[in-house]
Amino acid sequence: MERNLKELISKMTLEEKAGMCSGLDFWHLKNVERLGIPSVMVSDGPHGLRKQDDKGDHLGINDSIKAVCFPPACLSACSFDRELMTELGETIGREAQATDVSVVLGPAVNIKRSPLCGRNFEYYSEDPYLAGETAAAFINGVQSQHVGTSIKHFAANNQEYNRMSNSSEADERTLREIYFPAFETAVKKSRPYTVMCSYNRVNGVYASENPWLLTDVLRGEWGFEGYVMSDWGAVNERVPALKAGLELEMPTSGGAGDQEIIKAVKDGTLDEAVLDRAVERILRISFKWLDNRKEQPFTMEEDHEFARHTAEQSMVLLKNENVLPLKTDEKVAFIGGFAKKPRFQGGGSSHINSFRVSSALDAVSRMEEISGNVTYAEGFAADKDVYDETLAAEAVEAAKNADKAVIFAGLPDSFESEGYDRAHMGLPQCQNRLIAEILKVQPNTIVVLHNGSPVEMPWLADVKGLLEAYLGGQAVGEAEVSLLYGKVNPSGKLAETIPLKLSDNPSYLNFGEGEKTVYHEGVFVGYRYYDTKEMPVAFPFGYGLSYTTFAYSNLKLDKDELTEKDTLTVSVDVTNTGNVPGKEIVQLYVRDNSGACRRPDKELKGYEKVALEPGETKTVTMTLDHRSFAWYNTDMKDWYSASGTYDILIGASSRDIRLTSAVQMKSSVKPPLKLHLNTTLGELLSDERTMEYGKYLADKMTSFFGGSSDEASEAITDEMNAAMATSMPIRNVFSFGACSKEEVLEGLNKLIEAQK
Amino acid sequence: MERNLKELISKMTLEEKAGMCSGLDFWHLKNVERLGIPSVMVSDGPHGLRKQDDKGDHLGINDSIKAVCFPPACLSACSFDRELMTELGETIGREAQATDVSVVLGPAVNIKRSPLCGRNFEYYSEDPYLAGETAAAFINGVQSQHVGTSIKHFAANNQEYNRMSNSSEADERTLREIYFPAFETAVKKSRPYTVMCSYNRVNGVYASENPWLLTDVLRGEWGFEGYVMSDWGAVNERVPALKAGLELEMPTSGGAGDQEIIKAVKDGTLDEAVLDRAVERILRISFKWLDNRKEQPFTMEEDHEFARHTAEQSMVLLKNENVLPLKTDEKVAFIGGFAKKPRFQGGGSSHINSFRVSSALDAVSRMEEISGNVTYAEGFAADKDVYDETLAAEAVEAAKNADKAVIFAGLPDSFESEGYDRAHMGLPQCQNRLIAEILKVQPNTIVVLHNGSPVEMPWLADVKGLLEAYLGGQAVGEAEVSLLYGKVNPSGKLAETIPLKLSDNPSYLNFGEGEKTVYHEGVFVGYRYYDTKEMPVAFPFGYGLSYTTFAYSNLKLDKDELTEKDTLTVSVDVTNTGNVPGKEIVQLYVRDNSGACRRPDKELKGYEKVALEPGETKTVTMTLDHRSFAWYNTDMKDWYSASGTYDILIGASSRDIRLTSAVQMKSSVKPPLKLHLNTTLGELLSDERTMEYGKYLADKMTSFFGGSSDEASEAITDEMNAAMATSMPIRNVFSFGACSKEEVLEGLNKLIEAQK
Repeated sequence: MERNLKELISKMTLEEKAGMCSGLDFWHLKNVERLGIPSVMVSDGPHGLRKQDDKGDHLGINDSIKAVCFPPACLSACSFDRELMTELGETIGREAQATDVSVVLGPAVNIKRSPLCGRNFEYYSEDPYLAGETAAAFINGVQSQHVGTSIKHFAANNQEYNRMSNSSEADERTLREIYFPAFETAVKKSRPYTVMCSYNRVNGVYASENPWLLTDVLRGEWGFEGYVMSDWGAVNERVPALKAGLELEMPTSGGAGDQEIIKAVKDGTLDEAVLDRAVERILRISFKWLDNRKEQPFTMEEDHEFARHTAEQSMVLLKNENVLPLKTDEKVAFIGGFAKKPRFQGGGSSHINSFRVSSALDAVSRMEEISGNVTYAEGFAADKDVYDETLAAEAVEAAKNADKAVIFAGLPDSFESEGYDRAHMGLPQCQNRLIAEILKVQPNTIVVLHNGSPVEMPWLADVKGLLEAYLGGQAVGEAEVSLLYGKVNPSGKLAETIPLKLSDNPSYLNFGEGEKTVYHEGVFVGYRYYDTKEMPVAFPFGYGLSYTTFAYSNLKLDKDELTEKDTLTVSVDVTNTGNVPGKEIVQLYVRDNSGACRRPDKELKGYEKVALEPGETKTVTMTLDHRSFAWYNTDMKDWYSASGTYDILIGASSRDIRLTSAVQMKSSVKPPLKLHLNTTLGELLSDERTMEYGKYLADKMTSFFGGSSDEASEAITDEMNAAMATSMPIRNVFSFGACSKEEVLEGLNKLIEAQK
Repeated sequence: MERNLKELISKMTLEEKAGMCSGLDFWHLKNVERLGIPSVMVSDGPHGLRKQDDKGDHLGINDSIKAVCFPPACLSACSFDRELMTELGETIGREAQATDVSVVLGPAVNIKRSPLCGRNFEYYSEDPYLAGETAAAFINGVQSQHVGTSIKHFAANNQEYNRMSNSSEADERTLREIYFPAFETAVKKSRPYTVMCSYNRVNGVYASENPWLLTDVLRGEWGFEGYVMSDWGAVNERVPALKAGLELEMPTSGGAGDQEIIKAVKDGTLDEAVLDRAVERILRISFKWLDNRKEQPFTMEEDHEFARHTAEQSMVLLKNENVLPLKTDEKVAFIGGFAKKPRFQGGGSSHINSFRVSSALDAVSRMEEISGNVTYAEGFAADKDVYDETLAAEAVEAAKNADKAVIFAGLPDSFESEGYDRAHMGLPQCQNRLIAEILKVQPNTIVVLHNGSPVEMPWLADVKGLLEAYLGGQAVGEAEVSLLYGKVNPSGKLAETIPLKLSDNPSYLNFGEGEKTVYHEGVFVGYRYYDTKEMPVAFPFGYGLSYTTFAYSNLKLDKDELTEKDTLTVSVDVTNTGNVPGKEIVQLYVRDNSGACRRPDKELKGYEKVALEPGETKTVTMTLDHRSFAWYNTDMKDWYSASGTYDILIGASSRDIRLTSAVQMKSSVKPPLKLHLNTTLGELLSDERTMEYGKYLADKMTSFFGGSSDEASEAITDEMNAAMATSMPIRNVFSFGACSKEEVLEGLNKLIEAQK
């Protein structure tokens, strides 16, 4: 149905138009009954619907309808599985369609800058490529059901501390390479209906009133065509926000924002055309949903099964010293409050009112073949940090009497949530203490972790098995048991590095500051930092074990040399060399050896998840384009890959590179020359456009200083002289008297002319 | 003799005045014969005179007169001995006085930001307190002989790469706390005759034309009264430099700079009074020297002995597993080219034409009791990186046939020098390889290092002894042998951290960039970084062994509580618990637990070197003042120590804290409040001036969100609600509808009024 929105808007009063730019209440846009404009609803829910019927809030405090809680982003991203993410999106899209929700408020793609960020559990990764691919797949799934998404929180929203006033201070290269690409990829690949701006300021300007972000970059460069809504309460000044490109203020501001818009139009400080354009963008999306509505049956039972499947495909087996999978006839002690009351989602706006939750104990009780062999001791409570001697003693006894112990540990709700950051990176002390006690009596101990973001593991060297369940969604226990017993072969890999300790994190000295947080680490986030700094980590990015093994061979590049206009096709054979079926996540990293710019040791530019029967080999093919090699050159205001050698690294993790090949980039563009009296001779010598002039000046300098022969200076070699000369600016050639100023200027001016 | 400089200047022509502001040649200022203004000389030489008589240069290329080479700053700073530094200054001052040098161009106090900086060997420390105390003591010594000094290079000159054009980009707090204090302390405590500005730009503005640096801070805040000269060739634009406070341009610019000054005065763009003031400042210093000249005999022989003594008091024993001191009757193999041809100084402007150099072999040959028991094998050349199989085989054989092997290793001249930075942190590969070979045949192996800045030591775990000789001055070999054989007990400690590897360094990702180098690590330089980040290091700051042991006891503070106006006197008893006399360097670090600001784990604020006979105990007393506790608060534009607890840590190194006590700071000043609609409730709650209003608003918010009871939100505790509320800005209280905007504004405005 083609609607004439311009005509419709022309019939609206100024008040109606202004009203269309803010919520009716917490979850609905306003309607205009006389013009047939409906009140459409938006709802939280990147990993399940949080649809509130009466009193609304955005902090997960009040009631919402019963729904299915799928695994939050911290876990689903570990699937490295685009198809699975699309299916997850489709499933949530169907639920939204069936319950009259026009836009699902997700996915959340902010980069995990610090393990402490309280909202990391809602975010995918420390890597922008993985976050972008995952988000695009999810959005395509949701929107295939004719329900919108709202990719969030744009941009650089990486801490909860003072999140509504803090300024994230990052240089443009860092924003372009780390904090923007997940949004950029999703906008370009999956065209989300809406984008949600973040609470924080970006380099001093509120995201909600930042024209560079919301208009220049988002629409101008990336081609976004939907509307931008504010995070709940993110509008600082309504009129500047509207001008900057923030169409919809959420939730209702009780009419305050509308009044400011009306006043600004009336007093001439706001062009009414800006308002009209905003209304048109909002209505286009609302009608797009309305005009494509359809019956969309779903059952929560089926979706619960899909939640389990997603968790099984995502949980990460981190350690296994011949202790897993558990055998059905082994006596196993399940220990820890999380076995009975698992933590499977985080607090805040994404909090789902799950219609059912299955714990590990629930799952065991439904499996006859093992239920008789599993004992349970609580050991510690899941929701607080209190060491209970009685519970502990029972747990130690249970562990001692079993063949193996599985400790279900994790972070209580109060340790991490939207709204504030974690105070430290530790588990509750009672848990670490009990784990140590159990290790004294039971060498075959396995830990299962329930947490939204990495924890320090003082017992890591001593446990034999470790399953990172993250926050598993409502079917968490079923997934855990099927992985522990090998019903399903683990295939998730880490979407983030697990550092040994908090102080290893690159943002450690600059996280959670008061008025502004300077991103001093720049592009060196996550493994880009740990790998470049050659630091030991607990587990590297992209790491995860399987019950089978994989061999890599036959790496092929379709060309040895390329320009920035070409693509490069990379193929590699992967073989299941073990005895059970399994899935491997093949990762492609690129290393820039050109030396043109300080870059991370390697960056993820491709991945594929491949299922293999025992003995089976498949060829995995990945295609790289210019962006796979490029960095953002702020002088050029463009992506740039310098001529030189780039390594193509194929790995099972960022620290387990199995195969390497190299390709030559022959760039046809060059960064602009900077020619002035403080250009150094070294800079002149390093560029073919200026090399001749550089040699001429360097010769002048070295002959001026040359010819020494005394004892004191025999240590000064010609190489040392040359090294000193390269650091000298042009002005020194005449200021030291090696030649006349006129002579130097003549050559310089000729060069400057030649560049025009 | 009181001179009327104003009258003298009034007699000078414009040309003569302009001429007074630049050199006559490389080393002399201009004279005006008709007015009795002499041509005075300045000379390089923070660790000895480099006086050139004919063709001058500032890169150590051409000839200079024979002189004594004392240990460069990298070594002498390890003495941690103010008296010794004063004696060193007196000695150099006497030599300068005797050879008609009016100003010695040193000391160089730049902070060691990276081990790669080519000029680190000329600098004292990574710690600004140690660098400042050491510089002040040295300057007092030189100037006691009525010879001037030129403390350099002001400021933030921490790399050689593009040193003449690069901009050092650091925030003001970092400059104030790390890169300025050594200059500030020296200016305040020792009133250097001159200051030398650096080549580089500081936050975009050349140091040579930076009025904030050269006038506001240096003169206005610190009270500097001498003149500022340029580093050789550091003037970019002469007239802006003069206006900014750069009085003397060095070396001669062939009249070019003078002409620019004359032209500017004539066309009215430069106030002649600015020129007059500069001339007055220069002449005051020149006459101060001239009017205090005196006979000052010295002998190079005596000064050579002092050079040896300084080295003995400074070299650092880093490892000793019962292998040192060497016994006179042991068979010892001396190995490595550095035993015969030691590297004892660095290349560039500080390079001395030493009148004599004594190697370790020279020293042995003069000691009858050992000379028969020491063999020598070259093993590798001292000046290149070539593994010579024949030399290596001889060395291995020599090591095998001895009781112990001492390998004299180090960096060749070409590896580090003024003018360029080191390419890596390694020793020549030939040396590491030979050390490994020798370790296969000789377990009792000792390494003696000759280097201006730390090296990576892949063999560290396997050698039994390690003596860091740094660059030892011309008596290097004598000092080494007396320390190795225990004639003198080692007492130096590290003035810098030795990291395990280059990538551990805080500047690793931001060192040696092209146009600007951003100091992203901020105040976290050296141990401030390693200790705060809890990183393993090879050897910590302040570390050094002795042939005896020391016990610490009886830490006393003269008060438990103080304000910023008080001093705190700290005393501690130190006992020599071993069998030989020795000297201990007692270090005092302060830790700020107030939580008001992100600060390093600890900072050095006091040290004393104390000599103790076996069994002897002495009480060491140190006094702290406000600056010992304060950080630079850029909002206040002042030093500030927040109320709270501060730990007083007494240690034998930054990682070997022996005694701890605490003191309460009761600050009488408070940082200005920042009250606006985006002030967070947490900020209001944390300050007693705003606490009441904060509580009022927080109650509004929590009661607005409170009262939930459903399953989905039972995880949200009151604590979590409170944590969320603290991050909310004031505007959210009304934008969420918790109370009216008018009500909020009324309270806010009242508070703002109350602060006026």
